Amino acid sequence: MALRNIKLVIAYDGTRYHGWQRQKNAQTIQAVIEERLAVMTEAPVMLLASGRTDAGVHALEQVCNFKTASQIPADAFLRGLNALLPPDIFVKKVTEVPLAFHSRYLAKSKIYEYRILNTQNPDLFHRHMLWHIRFPLEVEKMSQCLSLLKGSHDFSAFKSAGSANQNPVRNILNAALESDEDGFLRIVLEADGFLRHMVRNIVGTLVEVGAGRMWVNGFREVLASGDRRLAGRKAPPQGLFLVAVKY
Amino acid sequence: MALRNIKLVIAYDGTRYHGWQRQKNAQTIQAVIEERLAVMTEAPVMLLASGRTDAGVHALEQVCNFKTASQIPADAFLRGLNALLPPDIFVKKVTEVPLAFHSRYLAKSKIYEYRILNTQNPDLFHRHMLWHIRFPLEVEKMSQCLSLLKGSHDFSAFKSAGSANQNPVRNILNAALESDEDGFLRIVLEADGFLRHMVRNIVGTLVEVGAGRMWVNGFREVLASGDRRLAGRKAPPQGLFLVAVKY
Repeated sequence: MALRNIKLVIAYDGTRYHGWQRQKNAQTIQAVIEERLAVMTEAPVMLLASGRTDAGVHALEQVCNFKTASQIPADAFLRGLNALLPPDIFVKKVTEVPLAFHSRYLAKSKIYEYRILNTQNPDLFHRHMLWHIRFPLEVEKMSQCLSLLKGSHDFSAFKSAGSANQNPVRNILNAALESDEDGFLRIVLEADGFLRHMVRNIVGTLVEVGAGRMWVNGFREVLASGDRRLAGRKAPPQGLFLVAVKY
Repeated sequence: MALRNIKLVIAYDGTRYHGWQRQKNAQTIQAVIEERLAVMTEAPVMLLASGRTDAGVHALEQVCNFKTASQIPADAFLRGLNALLPPDIFVKKVTEVPLAFHSRYLAKSKIYEYRILNTQNPDLFHRHMLWHIRFPLEVEKMSQCLSLLKGSHDFSAFKSAGSANQNPVRNILNAALESDEDGFLRIVLEADGFLRHMVRNIVGTLVEVGAGRMWVNGFREVLASGDRRLAGRKAPPQGLFLVAVKY
């Protein structure tokens, strides 16, 4: 039987999961989808994603693919998976792609968004989808820092201590901050790739600047230093969304 | 010690609770707040609310009050409660009111809002805060039905079968529907009071009209009939918000 390569675009609310990647003794998004696919195709399935997301992190459009000998049409996968999956995972699109397609290796860029609510009172209906910060943030200074990130840099200062020994240079294609009069902040980062916890470490350091505990120049120095100990603390996971993956 | 009367304005995400009212063997919003107040005042506390909300129903501004001999100032109750309460209950305001104030008996009107998402794809991040309806709704016809509700009517057709033997006449002060181009619908109802499940029964019947399974005239006949069996099914709880109580 000819092998087919099926690409999925999926959204998920990461609140209940220990992240994307399959683990022993912990519920993960990959495992849940693989199990449903195995039921449908009557064979074990291995899902390849554009990258893992951490526990509590969400996706608006994660991309993954799997190879199968099953003859189930793409739109039947779409309907079948959405009927079988729990309500916090939703398959937006299913397409059959050439066998050479690989969700991770062929990704040209990824877009992440980090959501902050900067108000006195919390928004309890969105508490799993943003970082609530009570003290006032100087948004203009945070924007200045973001523009320093554009282009190619060594992001060692913003990579997680436990991350693998990989090339720390990444190319930031877009770094922007939007804010509205209700105190809602949206930090958007697009890059050819991200180091482990890179967005959350950048956001944590931006918040230091916004809070007046670090100068914009200090942020520039942290980036240049390559020293993780100089950066701010990692922002919490629930504000982070994988928005899209480009190929 | 002089007794004081303390009024609370609270917001809650009702997802995790078996409604407002204290029950045996089930977590309720009333019980959680009463327990925290008992810790603070070192005495049992009985909370009186403007009315109960069902399991899964939310509040933007529920009003309740309690009598206490405690000398804790109002703003210390605000800070203390918010430090002790779980993240899905938030106290927005605490004021000391005259002893005669009664959250239920003195309420002049209540405003409820029901949220519907009328799109092909679900919004999984708001799945606990709206009713997702896939088939297209004729919003204009639903608006026509809502305008029929204004004024005083016998709402027996929209009261729950198990509700107490009470006067079924209510005065609807406002009944309106807002919708946007993203398929988000908001049905707002203000009345001097509501029968049990009245908003959800009205919304369920409105959706019958919006779906083309009932005429606007049929809706008028249901209201006039006083017969619950003619109305549509009760809308699910998670789309319903108690917005405000007026005194």
